[in-house]
Amino acid sequence: MYTYPALLQLINQKITETSFGSNPKELYEPITYMMGLGGKRLRPVLTLMAADMFAADVNKALDAALAIEVFHNFTLVHDDIMDNAPLRRGKETVFQKWNMPVAILSGDLMLIRSIDLLAKTETNQFSKLLSVFNDTAAKVCEGQQIDMNFETLSKVTHDEYIHMISLKTAVLLGASLEIGARIAGASEVDAMHMYEFGKCIGIAFQIQDDILDSFGQTAAVGKRIGGDIASNKKTLLLIELLDSVHKDDLKLLQNLLAEPNDELKIEGVLALYDKYQIKAFAESQKQQYLDTAFHHLNEVSVSPERKQLLINTAHELMERVS
Amino acid sequence: MYTYPALLQLINQKITETSFGSNPKELYEPITYMMGLGGKRLRPVLTLMAADMFAADVNKALDAALAIEVFHNFTLVHDDIMDNAPLRRGKETVFQKWNMPVAILSGDLMLIRSIDLLAKTETNQFSKLLSVFNDTAAKVCEGQQIDMNFETLSKVTHDEYIHMISLKTAVLLGASLEIGARIAGASEVDAMHMYEFGKCIGIAFQIQDDILDSFGQTAAVGKRIGGDIASNKKTLLLIELLDSVHKDDLKLLQNLLAEPNDELKIEGVLALYDKYQIKAFAESQKQQYLDTAFHHLNEVSVSPERKQLLINTAHELMERVS
Repeated sequence: MYTYPALLQLINQKITETSFGSNPKELYEPITYMMGLGGKRLRPVLTLMAADMFAADVNKALDAALAIEVFHNFTLVHDDIMDNAPLRRGKETVFQKWNMPVAILSGDLMLIRSIDLLAKTETNQFSKLLSVFNDTAAKVCEGQQIDMNFETLSKVTHDEYIHMISLKTAVLLGASLEIGARIAGASEVDAMHMYEFGKCIGIAFQIQDDILDSFGQTAAVGKRIGGDIASNKKTLLLIELLDSVHKDDLKLLQNLLAEPNDELKIEGVLALYDKYQIKAFAESQKQQYLDTAFHHLNEVSVSPERKQLLINTAHELMERVS
Repeated sequence: MYTYPALLQLINQKITETSFGSNPKELYEPITYMMGLGGKRLRPVLTLMAADMFAADVNKALDAALAIEVFHNFTLVHDDIMDNAPLRRGKETVFQKWNMPVAILSGDLMLIRSIDLLAKTETNQFSKLLSVFNDTAAKVCEGQQIDMNFETLSKVTHDEYIHMISLKTAVLLGASLEIGARIAGASEVDAMHMYEFGKCIGIAFQIQDDILDSFGQTAAVGKRIGGDIASNKKTLLLIELLDSVHKDDLKLLQNLLAEPNDELKIEGVLALYDKYQIKAFAESQKQQYLDTAFHHLNEVSVSPERKQLLINTAHELMERVS
């Protein structure tokens, strides 16, 4: 079996070897640029890991893995326009480096190319792969819209929040694993468990992201601690605090949410997080999704040894401190 | 065989019956709105006509026809953002009626749904259909980018112009016919001729659009005569004028291109179009593409009677005066 670094290298080599097109250069240079920004390539690595777990040649899943990475990068290019984001992985976003029309069009083309890549997969199950891929793609768009809607809502419930992060982030992790498993010939039931494992890991991962934003030990590169608090972002932490705050503290919290000084605001909200044990709540939520994830992985009908890399990878994802 | 109105009705009924999704409404309402704006539905009607011409049940091609119409509308939604266009078919554009993020995301979702629809087609040739569809989709994006590039270029050649309109407009007409023909079981050679027929008709149609913008008899709804001239748009007419103008008239033309008064500008450029017989040139170009189109249709191995509706439709497209 492979290691994460070995699979990452396969993906990066595949990206280097792939030509997405060349003319007009205004359209293709942003694609090469975006695909070259690097990162941990989690989604395509998961696709290969799933194929490997079912003892298939990982090369059979390489086109599909790249399809998923190209799709993921398409969502980033378009999201960066909507979020007016200047930086991505410490480099200029496509929107910033070129312009809005180029970012729209090169993103569109990445979506088209992702389907092309998926279609290169040698499989007798292509229509199923395409339907998993496209259903997931639609959900990711829905998740992004719901996330944008949250900005203008006065109240978001716990369930609405979990639904949003499932769509926006988690289903693509699920689909990455399911597609790898299906290419390897996994049964319908195993494919479903792989999807649920990935989806639950994705939800846990996003909750952890929320926790780290307020309680990370050090500021990760390009991200300061408390950014979510400063921007009143409706994270699981804030949603829970708003749900559980006593009426004696409500006025204080409302004042903090309107506080223009970020330092005072972050300090004040963190104090309330401590008082209401919000971190412990979020940690327990994260743990519940992790437990469900491992339950699904446990149900998959391959030997425990073949699951070990995926288990280790999930734990490593959850152990990062920034 | 069917008539255009009968096929149009089939398409419109199919659109009415199709649910693209509902939640979140910010994402799906614009899709329903856009698909409901109407129009002549030329592309999906061509798909059905092609299937009918090869004596297939047109209902077999209905999902693919709708896929093409949804794809076409996706390009309009995104183009309207890039062009900052307030109106489309006399109604507000999605970008204008909602906002830019909604227009980006609902467009993305239309592209995803178009692939879903195509995949519903019952055929043993799906991978070929998908590759025609996706190659065409990529070309349409390339054409839009090249068209935007033209705005900042000081010189565009005749060939570059034809290349741009082929990609931006014509290949989709070609693909609409090819896909209908393939669903009906047409041979490889016939499918190719159908594609070329549609592409050449598309180029002729676009050249006619350029002619009408300067020489149309009356202002069509929402479009004034001379709009291309006023905006210095690099149409086939202006490109040819710039190519053929004597040096004695060059200064006059340059002054006209810089003229801030639209009326004076349009009048002056039209006078030069007359002097250099630009309309006749464009008409002859249009005729050349029409001739090539009918040559390809002629080669298709079905009886002349079965081709008649397509021939009539092409002529009607070319005879509109506004």
